[in-house]
Amino acid sequence: MNKKLLLDNLRCIPDYPIPGIMFQDVSTLFKNPECIQEMKNELVRIYKDKGITKVVGIESRGFVMGAILADELGAGFVMARKPGKLPAETKSISYKKEYGEDTIEIHADAIEQGDVVLIQDDILATGGSMLAVCKLCQQFNPSKIYVNFLIEINNEGLNGRKALEGFDFTTLMTIPEKE
Amino acid sequence: MNKKLLLDNLRCIPDYPIPGIMFQDVSTLFKNPECIQEMKNELVRIYKDKGITKVVGIESRGFVMGAILADELGAGFVMARKPGKLPAETKSISYKKEYGEDTIEIHADAIEQGDVVLIQDDILATGGSMLAVCKLCQQFNPSKIYVNFLIEINNEGLNGRKALEGFDFTTLMTIPEKE
Repeated sequence: MNKKLLLDNLRCIPDYPIPGIMFQDVSTLFKNPECIQEMKNELVRIYKDKGITKVVGIESRGFVMGAILADELGAGFVMARKPGKLPAETKSISYKKEYGEDTIEIHADAIEQGDVVLIQDDILATGGSMLAVCKLCQQFNPSKIYVNFLIEINNEGLNGRKALEGFDFTTLMTIPEKE
Repeated sequence: MNKKLLLDNLRCIPDYPIPGIMFQDVSTLFKNPECIQEMKNELVRIYKDKGITKVVGIESRGFVMGAILADELGAGFVMARKPGKLPAETKSISYKKEYGEDTIEIHADAIEQGDVVLIQDDILATGGSMLAVCKLCQQFNPSKIYVNFLIEINNEGLNGRKALEGFDFTTLMTIPEKE
């Protein structure tokens, strides 16, 4: 994978959404066709022999590479959405955030027992929402759950790696880069 | 295109989100890999020779086939999002809805002058949000704007076709089917 191309095209926005946070904006990767191809090829290389049957994207930046990957792998694509957005019966899970609580939902018939699930999102920070989606997916009794993030934030205070311990996850890039 | 496969897999939800509305739920198309392939192949057939350089997906169901299509066409993918979701400088547009007003945003550097833009969304009903996104994209001076919906709601009261008059748009299916 041409990591330099991706790092050169990733936009970092200081103090967003709050002071002290360096926000990693993947929209500048998505708008560049070479970056899409580069990320896709790497994701396909990693996951093509895993027998993935469903790719779950986390609303809404996880829908972009998640959908592309589902198409490439010949898998179905499933949306993990905020409450009240999915029209049919759902399974849902609530999880604690730094301030307050959040809930995420998946259609109750979107994943079947025995599916091989890959959950995709853009950024690994604390891992809180991904851990919630992993637990939500477990309710469907899949035969295996894989997890991918495009970018991992390398900051010991976040503990994202620890939150997802025991899950089979990959990240394409680490920011700032590890020495 | 195997329209029967798509129509058989589309889920209709009566009285959602309000009584009297028959909601067309594309999530059952997205979760089925054959349906994704079928829609993708048809979209590629229609748009492959148009020189599309940017596909704009409308948050958030428009991100799914929009991203897949951007990848297939070798175009960049751009998110049209609700206010406050995009971290960098944006262009935005407000438009009237049946009750109240809504706003939609695109990053100010996401589309360049001369780009050939395809805007993708799932459902054509009144066409209000798509018309707003078309007008927003025009602010970027693209050389051409194309529009695609997966599904057109065939209901004279909605007037979606009339709202988009003058724009070059296609729809893959009409519900209920025209005689």
